[in-house]
Amino acid sequence: MVKVGLIGFGYWGPNLVRNFASADNCQVKMVADFRIDRIANISRLYPGVEITADPLDIINNKDIDAVIIATPVFTHFDLAEAALKNGKHVLVEKPMTSSTKQAETLLNIAEQRNLTLMVDHTFLYTGAVDKMKELIEGDSIGKVKYFDSTRINLGLFQPDVNVLWDLAPHDLSILFHLVPYKPVSVNAVGISHTSNQIENIAYLTINYENDFIAHFNCSWTSPVKVRSTLIGGDKKMIVYNDLEPSEKIRIYDTSYNHQNDEEKNRIMVDYRIGDVQIPKVSTKEALASVAKDFIQSILQKKQPIANGQLGMDVVRILEASQVSIKNLGKQINISK
Amino acid sequence: MVKVGLIGFGYWGPNLVRNFASADNCQVKMVADFRIDRIANISRLYPGVEITADPLDIINNKDIDAVIIATPVFTHFDLAEAALKNGKHVLVEKPMTSSTKQAETLLNIAEQRNLTLMVDHTFLYTGAVDKMKELIEGDSIGKVKYFDSTRINLGLFQPDVNVLWDLAPHDLSILFHLVPYKPVSVNAVGISHTSNQIENIAYLTINYENDFIAHFNCSWTSPVKVRSTLIGGDKKMIVYNDLEPSEKIRIYDTSYNHQNDEEKNRIMVDYRIGDVQIPKVSTKEALASVAKDFIQSILQKKQPIANGQLGMDVVRILEASQVSIKNLGKQINISK
Amino acid sequence: MVKVGLIGFGYWGPNLVRNFASADNCQVKMVADFRIDRIANISRLYPGVEITADPLDIINNKDIDAVIIATPVFTHFDLAEAALKNGKHVLVEKPMTSSTKQAETLLNIAEQRNLTLMVDHTFLYTGAVDKMKELIEGDSIGKVKYFDSTRINLGLFQPDVNVLWDLAPHDLSILFHLVPYKPVSVNAVGISHTSNQIENIAYLTINYENDFIAHFNCSWTSPVKVRSTLIGGDKKMIVYNDLEPSEKIRIYDTSYNHQNDEEKNRIMVDYRIGDVQIPKVSTKEALASVAKDFIQSILQKKQPIANGQLGMDVVRILEASQVSIKNLGKQINISK
Amino acid sequence: MVKVGLIGFGYWGPNLVRNFASADNCQVKMVADFRIDRIANISRLYPGVEITADPLDIINNKDIDAVIIATPVFTHFDLAEAALKNGKHVLVEKPMTSSTKQAETLLNIAEQRNLTLMVDHTFLYTGAVDKMKELIEGDSIGKVKYFDSTRINLGLFQPDVNVLWDLAPHDLSILFHLVPYKPVSVNAVGISHTSNQIENIAYLTINYENDFIAHFNCSWTSPVKVRSTLIGGDKKMIVYNDLEPSEKIRIYDTSYNHQNDEEKNRIMVDYRIGDVQIPKVSTKEALASVAKDFIQSILQKKQPIANGQLGMDVVRILEASQVSIKNLGKQINISK
Repeated sequence: MVKVGLIGFGYWGPNLVRNFASADNCQVKMVADFRIDRIANISRLYPGVEITADPLDIINNKDIDAVIIATPVFTHFDLAEAALKNGKHVLVEKPMTSSTKQAETLLNIAEQRNLTLMVDHTFLYTGAVDKMKELIEGDSIGKVKYFDSTRINLGLFQPDVNVLWDLAPHDLSILFHLVPYKPVSVNAVGISHTSNQIENIAYLTINYENDFIAHFNCSWTSPVKVRSTLIGGDKKMIVYNDLEPSEKIRIYDTSYNHQNDEEKNRIMVDYRIGDVQIPKVSTKEALASVAKDFIQSILQKKQPIANGQLGMDVVRILEASQVSIKNLGKQINISK
Repeated sequence: MVKVGLIGFGYWGPNLVRNFASADNCQVKMVADFRIDRIANISRLYPGVEITADPLDIINNKDIDAVIIATPVFTHFDLAEAALKNGKHVLVEKPMTSSTKQAETLLNIAEQRNLTLMVDHTFLYTGAVDKMKELIEGDSIGKVKYFDSTRINLGLFQPDVNVLWDLAPHDLSILFHLVPYKPVSVNAVGISHTSNQIENIAYLTINYENDFIAHFNCSWTSPVKVRSTLIGGDKKMIVYNDLEPSEKIRIYDTSYNHQNDEEKNRIMVDYRIGDVQIPKVSTKEALASVAKDFIQSILQKKQPIANGQLGMDVVRILEASQVSIKNLGKQINISK
Repeated sequence: MVKVGLIGFGYWGPNLVRNFASADNCQVKMVADFRIDRIANISRLYPGVEITADPLDIINNKDIDAVIIATPVFTHFDLAEAALKNGKHVLVEKPMTSSTKQAETLLNIAEQRNLTLMVDHTFLYTGAVDKMKELIEGDSIGKVKYFDSTRINLGLFQPDVNVLWDLAPHDLSILFHLVPYKPVSVNAVGISHTSNQIENIAYLTINYENDFIAHFNCSWTSPVKVRSTLIGGDKKMIVYNDLEPSEKIRIYDTSYNHQNDEEKNRIMVDYRIGDVQIPKVSTKEALASVAKDFIQSILQKKQPIANGQLGMDVVRILEASQVSIKNLGKQINISK
Repeated sequence: MVKVGLIGFGYWGPNLVRNFASADNCQVKMVADFRIDRIANISRLYPGVEITADPLDIINNKDIDAVIIATPVFTHFDLAEAALKNGKHVLVEKPMTSSTKQAETLLNIAEQRNLTLMVDHTFLYTGAVDKMKELIEGDSIGKVKYFDSTRINLGLFQPDVNVLWDLAPHDLSILFHLVPYKPVSVNAVGISHTSNQIENIAYLTINYENDFIAHFNCSWTSPVKVRSTLIGGDKKMIVYNDLEPSEKIRIYDTSYNHQNDEEKNRIMVDYRIGDVQIPKVSTKEALASVAKDFIQSILQKKQPIANGQLGMDVVRILEASQVSIKNLGKQINISK
């Protein structure tokens, strides 16, 4: 039985409580939010869950094994560090921290104390990403050549972080989960349409040693909502459209080797080759699997899918992209 | 009556002949292609049109007023220069030339000799682009803030030019036609998946003095064909989807000023604001208007819409983007 | 303050309780379901709500003003009649009853006792239907000429009623809400693919004195889910696609008078005329408005939108359609 | 070498001439149209093709083996009968004739004289229909249970025939080509919105001895163009959307047997079962295959796919549907 406390009861909080409350081998002991009115009636829905305005009531609670941190990004590090130092397992919202250095510190503490450190990259637990993982590892896609993601909508302008920190973590975590190659550098450009100079449109490219490339188009100012990713392999290609209710993944029997001219011409005259497959993907709630993976990782002392290392890799890219934007798109190497 | 000769009878050739043959005040005198078999039976379809294997038969032809050049890019400059120097008006396929310097030379000759120099940026003559021009100049869109274009498909890998030189001229010409601001620099990155190291995927950003930004996503290796552009204004936004048969333009009653928090929150909870309008756009064949504009410009000594200056602006961006790609995405200023 | 009791806590029950519990001037006193386990923990979510296995505990309850009946269709009449005779206002799930005669009886009792009798035709309270009502009454559509509805999906085969009784009430209620004309007869055909001979595919046509026509295509055995309705006027036409998250209503600037041949030809060459408008429609939860209308109708002694008369009109069509199906599609007059 | 003459050079005429002119073992000798100006310059495009205003110049022409009749429906019978009686093979536009009796007469003459009688049901020669035929005969669909077709758009109101005679022949020919069962009766209803009382909206149902059903929704007055057909089998289902440029056929791994309740519930919670397959279909021009089949049938004395029998079956349904409409939707048996 893992006893958990939740710090931060904002937009995502109710979903976290609901899923952890109904998870096996888990008990939600306490929820903390300084906006005490927000959590006043939690105990009515979940008898036995205590509430508090002070995160320390959770972090110092002898009776709590694990802490879920769902507060603004700039607070992740202090809270996670304190929790880990008190011997608590930690699940932190994405992005993990505000800097790679902070992420590294958390990783080290967790490792020294054999504690589970996990980041809530929820998308890694969706049926669609499961299916793409299976396709890529099963080699039906062939050698992966590119990853091209668009995540744009008419969204809230965050007051503290730019659009990449807000939207790209989803796609970056999917990229690192699916593609085994190691990134070596990034290029990023962006623009701000507000006085605070925080970018609301940004374009990020990740470069690799081999001929793989990843590109991310992020915007808070698109009239249309788009959540789509192209993943090209030398055997097949995947189109992942997260807005499709029942057809999120499409697999194209297509490739683009160009040994000979006939091939070239066939491609020219023909704008797709072969069939399209739309596999059925599980529609289970991803957050339930997040809860399960966190609890199982604690109990079985294993690494979760969305582990701290992956969380740090995401932060490293975001950090480098910010440097690139400030340096007019200059290529920034990723120090390791 | 303008008497024209066409040099190069490839994929686009038959469309050029058909449209110029049926244009007012125009007569097609001669077609040249060294692949003589390709043009053998033109005279059957178009009595009175002579054929030749040698472009010089057109360039040196006293009886020809204007020359259409529809040959590979690397031949544009020599043929156009020769034609202009022989006093012929010139319509050249896009991109205009292989370098800004070449484009400048042609512009100068044309100016000195009062000759019409036009580039076949056909998209500028479509009903959809007309409509967008009208919307932007009519100020219903407000101050234009960004231009985000995606032109990807499973296309023929060009042996000589990269994907930007092949696909971006369409979108660049539309950008320069619609948006009055002057670009100051570019960032571009790309990747080649073939041994010849010619990029088949590339991303281009154009930066401006004000807070406007333009981005171009070009690929020959997408499993799906996409031809779409987002144009954001501070009053309304346009989505231009060229693959839609009858709904190419959608206008969104949306904007993103953030004076106050209510606005922010409304945007957050609501993923679009107001109505969508799908205006009817003319479906006339664009190339017929290209022919008309070329002939009218010659007869009335006016500048065509797709004039040499615009053609040169396009080439300047392509040239700078190549430098940026070779310099790992470094920002390249646009020398003027 | 209206005190309500709910009989039947199946699929729709939780939504009913939630919306009535949060409605103004309303208190949910009791929920009855013979599957007592289903309602065991209601009081934990809604303190003060009593539960019972016996509907009579609600119907005979002096302290209850209004009864919501959300049980299988064949039980609607007996429960509603008993409730009305005990002086309770009644909201019954759709379809209202199993026969027009039953519906008439309920209407009469309600009238004699000045009680509110309402049917839960939820769709009449959606933003999309509101908008269509506004468009049609505002005469921007012109004279309505046809109503063509398709409601098909891969659905559960009901064991007791055919696909028309299951799916058509939604569209029939919308038709009667939007179109003022009086139907005079129906034609219906259908097919059963199961041993119980209950139709899983059926087609219904409603005929009118004027040249208006309504058609309904209903199926439980379609591989794709479709929820769309065309409403044609002599000025404009509406396409209502209920599956669209944010573009449920499209208004076409089109009509089909054919006074002259130019018009004909324009229609032939051109596959739509004029613009398309996609108005923003409210996304409020319809069931909240159902609760509000029921409560207001009781307190203000007014007729609700989804009143018993409309509910009876729907049942009359369903009843006649069944006769038509049994008579091989023969036209059945609607006795009034 | 088959020498053909074409009678009627309207909308479809140029396509017929082009395809027959380029077909093997075929020579277009003469084209007849009383609107002589329409055909004046045919010989410029097709040297050697003679023109005439009088169909008899073709029908009585000793040098012509086969006649293509592309005139209004009401003229089909007289021209076809005269041609057959003069020993000519006949390809007639669809619908074949204005009555079953006429069709029968033509069939008899053709049979007696061993002449090929074919109807231009072009859709039977498309890649999409080929693919569906292959799927159904290959039994991957299982036992076919229903055929539900929608063919609506904003179309020209025909002055002489109603919307079923105009649009349904396409779908009826596909039905008869794909589904082996024999129809036994029809029900049809329709409405006219014009003074000439010709139906511009009509609904047709075809009934069979077994539990198969076919339904057709035809309209000239829809704001949106729809060309789609659902074909349900007890193993899989097909959605055929003819407006899709590259995804005309979708195959759903779904079925609806209901042996047990788990199955029922699975269907209820889940709105599709299994994967979707989008096979690549040939994009060859169908009319070229029509020409080829006609010529091959003549030379090899075989029955074409779109033979006279199939053409007559189509007319029989249209004729019965008209009787049903006039009899208020009454079921009309199909006399054989």
